Order: sequence, then C-alpha cells, then structure tokens
Amino acid sequence: MRILILGAAGMVGRRLIDRLVAERRIAGQDIDVIEAFDVVEADIASPEGITIEAKAGDISDRSEIEALVAKRPDIIFHLAAIVSGEAEADFEKGYRINLDGMSHLLEAIRHEGDVYRPRLVFTSSIAVFGAPFEEPIGDTFLSAPLTSYGTQKAICELLLNDYSRKGYVDGVGIRLPTIVVRPGKPNKAASSFFSGIIREPLAGQEAILPVADDVRHWVASPAAAVGFLMHAALMDTERLGARRCLTMPGLSVTIAEMIEALRVVAGDEVAGRIRREPDAVIEKIVAGWPRNFDASRAEEMGFSADADFADIIRAHMADEAAKTQGSPR
Amino acid sequence: MRILILGAAGMVGRRLIDRLVAERRIAGQDIDVIEAFDVVEADIASPEGITIEAKAGDISDRSEIEALVAKRPDIIFHLAAIVSGEAEADFEKGYRINLDGMSHLLEAIRHEGDVYRPRLVFTSSIAVFGAPFEEPIGDTFLSAPLTSYGTQKAICELLLNDYSRKGYVDGVGIRLPTIVVRPGKPNKAASSFFSGIIREPLAGQEAILPVADDVRHWVASPAAAVGFLMHAALMDTERLGARRCLTMPGLSVTIAEMIEALRVVAGDEVAGRIRREPDAVIEKIVAGWPRNFDASRAEEMGFSADADFADIIRAHMADEAAKTQGSPR
Repeated sequence: MRILILGAAGMVGRRLIDRLVAERRIAGQDIDVIEAFDVVEADIASPEGITIEAKAGDISDRSEIEALVAKRPDIIFHLAAIVSGEAEADFEKGYRINLDGMSHLLEAIRHEGDVYRPRLVFTSSIAVFGAPFEEPIGDTFLSAPLTSYGTQKAICELLLNDYSRKGYVDGVGIRLPTIVVRPGKPNKAASSFFSGIIREPLAGQEAILPVADDVRHWVASPAAAVGFLMHAALMDTERLGARRCLTMPGLSVTIAEMIEALRVVAGDEVAGRIRREPDAVIEKIVAGWPRNFDASRAEEMGFSADADFADIIRAHMADEAAKTQGSPR
Repeated sequence: MRILILGAAGMVGRRLIDRLVAERRIAGQDIDVIEAFDVVEADIASPEGITIEAKAGDISDRSEIEALVAKRPDIIFHLAAIVSGEAEADFEKGYRINLDGMSHLLEAIRHEGDVYRPRLVFTSSIAVFGAPFEEPIGDTFLSAPLTSYGTQKAICELLLNDYSRKGYVDGVGIRLPTIVVRPGKPNKAASSFFSGIIREPLAGQEAILPVADDVRHWVASPAAAVGFLMHAALMDTERLGARRCLTMPGLSVTIAEMIEALRVVAGDEVAGRIRREPDAVIEKIVAGWPRNFDASRAEEMGFSADADFADIIRAHMADEAAKTQGSPR
C-alpha cells in the first residue's frame, strides 16, 4: 500500500504517521510507502520495512499535485490547510491553498482515469456551520459559514461529494472538533486557550482563561482525531450514500467541566494555576462558534469520541511523559 | 443606471429585459444602458432612451468577464448556466460554465476595488437540495445536491455569501422553482412535461403525461420569476445578514390540481388533450426532486409567488394572445 499525506508536518499529520508506522498494515495489506507532503519537509526517519518519502511543496501548484497523484497512492489523507485566521486575513491565499489545492487534487485523480479510484480522507471543520444554530446541530443542518475558511471547507465538501458520486474518487470528509490538548506552545488562534488551560498548569505554568466558565465547546483529543482518520480510511463508504461528509463525535464540555476534570486528575494546586482574565474580543469570537452537535450519523458509521474529558487529560500527560523519556533534555 | 445581464438570451432573460424597458427606471434612477450578454447575441432593438448593448461571448473566459465588469454596471443579473442534464453529461463543461463563470465574475468585481460594490442577483436552483428531504424543506436544510448542476449552484451560493460578507459585492441568490408555463416547444429536460401538459392542449395539440396524477411539484410562472429578479435587485440586503440565498416562494401543486385548473380555465375539451403514458425513467427522476418548501423567509423579505395555478394558466394565455397580435403570421 502506498499512502499520501498532504499536510503531514502538522500535529495531526505527524501523529497519523506514528499510528500508521505502528500498525504497519492497513486494510489487510502491508504499508510500503508513506509520502509525507507539506510546505516544510517533515523530518521523519523511515522505520524498517516502510519507506517514508518526505517532500516539501505547494499544494496550490497544480503540477506538484499531479506528480504526487501520478504515483497512484491507494489512500490519500488531505489534512493541508491554512487556518481560519490566516484565511480571513489573506483572502486570496485562503482560496488558493484551501480551495484550489483540493480542486487540483480531485482533478488530478479524475484525470488518472477509470482504473484509479483512491480512498480520499479530507479533514473538514465545524467552521462550515455559522450562527444562528439549531441546538444540537444535526447532519441535515445547512452549511452557512461565517468565515472564508469555513466557506472553503464547505465548498471542498460539496466537491468531494460530487466527485465521489460520479465515481472519480472514494471520498470521506470528516469535520473535526477542536483538538484539545494540543501539545507545544500557545498560538494566536482564538481557540488556543482551550488547550492552554490544561497544558500550562500541568507544566507548572500559569494559564489565562479569557472567557466565562459556562462557555461550552466541542472537543476531541489528538488520539481521537487520528482514530477518526484511520476509521475514515477503512470504513465501508457505500453506507454513506451521496452524503460523504460527517460531523465527528466529540465531547461537549464547559470550561467549568474541563477545570473540574483537571482538578480530579491533577489536584487542586494544578487547577489553581488558571487565572481568569476576561477578553471581550475572544468572548465575542467564541460566542459565534457552534457548541453542541448530534453526531449520531458518524457514531452509527463507527466513529467514536473520547469517553470523558479526564481521559483526554490523562492521555496528554502520558504523551508528555513519553516525550520526556524519548528526548531527555 | 447601467445594468448587465449574463444569460440575457434565455426565456427569463428576455422577459427581464422587457420588464426593465417597461419600467424605464430602477431604484429611483433612469436605466441608461442594458448590456445583454449570452453565448448568442440577443436580437433586441433599443427602445427610445435606453441603449441595449447585445454581446455574444463565453462566460468562462475570464478576460471577457473582466471587460464586462470594467464598465462597472450598477446591477448585475447572473442568469447564465448550462442546464442540469448537460452539466451531468459533460462534467468539465458544467464546472467551467456554472462554477468558473461565477468565480471569474466575483473576482473581476473584487479586483475593481473598494469603490465598486454592485448588486449581484444570482439565479440558483432548488437542485441544491437532494433526497432524503425534510418536508417541507426550510431555509436551514442542508444543500446536498444529487447532480453536478446542483453542486455548482450550491458552491456559487457559498461564494456569493462569502464575497458579500467581505464587502466585495452586494449579492442576493434566488432559488427559482420550476418555471411553468414555458412558451415554445417541448425540450429534452425531464421537467418539460410540466409546461407541456398546459401549453400543448391550449394550442390544440395532444400532450403526453409521463408521471402519475398525484406527483407534486414546486412551480412559478415566468412573470413571477421576473418579479423575483426585480425584487432581488431592489431589496434591502441588510436584512439578509450573512445568508444571502433564498428559496423563492412557489406553488406546490399536484398534476391533478394542474389539470383541474386547466379544465376550469379552458374547459373539458382542452383538458381532455392530455394522454397518460407513464415513463418509468422520468418517474424515477421526478421522484428524486423536492416537492414542497417553506419559503417563509423569502416571503418575509417581500418575495411573492403566484396566487394560484389558474392564474398561471391565464397569464400564459394572455402572453400567447399578445404574441399572436404582435406578429400575426
């Protein structure tokens, strides 16, 4: 099996590679090659028996995508995107990377002809939904995004459905919840604090909470996200019919519930490292985000979420402990 | 006022021009120029005081669209499309005309800069919806098209919303019902018989009815369609918020109700010219079409449908009588 990962250098991409390498086989066959494509070359050593081909390039360059597809990967994971804030600030870049990239990919696959119909797993986003919402948001609720990023993801979903319906590709689109706990440093995303209020206190640092404790959000762990990708690569897509894009199951948790779970798992002192500093701008952004979904369709198709938020925290702690052991610096 | 009509040579386009010429003014200002663009040059004489510039060209040619937009029309009606059957048969042509055409138009408008923000009225379609439906289909039901045509229209709606949200254009998308009674000859569209069973009997000819009498459909007259376009050009778009595309109100009528209206308006002999000849292929296609909508959002915004089906028939008869008087051949 040859596997292509677009956006392989990101957090989810790297974890997906780790999982594939650990599994060694997929869909009953050996994994021979993983091609890891991103704007920067992923620095990953090939384990025994699997060749990892790291390649840096631009997904909006049609000829680069054609060259990747010409190798006829059996499974393609398309995780590449510029994030919401950047797509909003740079209108042209957002459409070029997030829409043209997908369009080139689908066209390159179609042009390979009838003999080639790979599984394509595309990571969409709950940003395809915009307020006012139904509560909870079900699988027949319209995509009315309030950002260019959400618009680009919604268009990619429509294209994925149509190219799949026509038999050019075997697509599955999965709308990921907000991934918590992201490892590493805080970033400038408005959602960054959802990871920060867990990650920083566990690392002995103070975290800023810019919103009220009753704010509710839809989250999944990095491991759950990789689980969604693996299941999407292997599932029976006949069951999806013409609607190939699914809201992934997640945990709908409030900030108060997240902090209480942190207290249960790590104690009062750790949970006490969260400082409340309301930020009207972030509160307004977060108020416009969807909070709760009915993901029963994805659950019926075999996708499963984290059991509870305490488990998410424990998994993050185990990951961090493993890292420390792996590179003791 | 300068008005640009893309797809001006079609039935709706020509009726829109007639209406604009009859009104002479729009939004409180004189109409100076109507540019009528289509794949064939529309043969329309300029009435006194209004210049009609007919131009033939290809909407998928970026430079042609840029040249049209460079004249900075105040209002743009984008009616141009290849129909469902053709977009399904010719995948590339469908995307080129129905999607790239809109994309070029929006980009050309954006590139004119901040000083230019025209009203853009785009005709979408109820083909953006695909079975299984909610009943009736409301304004928060997802777009899950089952044709490439419907996919292209749904993508255009998302783009229109995003470009409007960003302030590049002042867009309104209107999803037209099936237009009945279309004048002229039957065509190869699966929906052709909806007009045929009224038009042919009134013209003294037999009409074939390929589906059962209890089939329900969503229809509007050509005059109502032009009314929708005019209202979309003039309405206060602030009220639309970020969701700028609306299902137009229509009449939800069964075949039996249509035939009964024909009997009331034109008598038993005319209504007797319909021959039932079930066609399994057409029955299957029609079964996949949406039948009934909740168009209350459009109604609240001031769009209004035909009062009843008998009125639609009477309007068609009046149109035909006027034609006969106008060109006595």
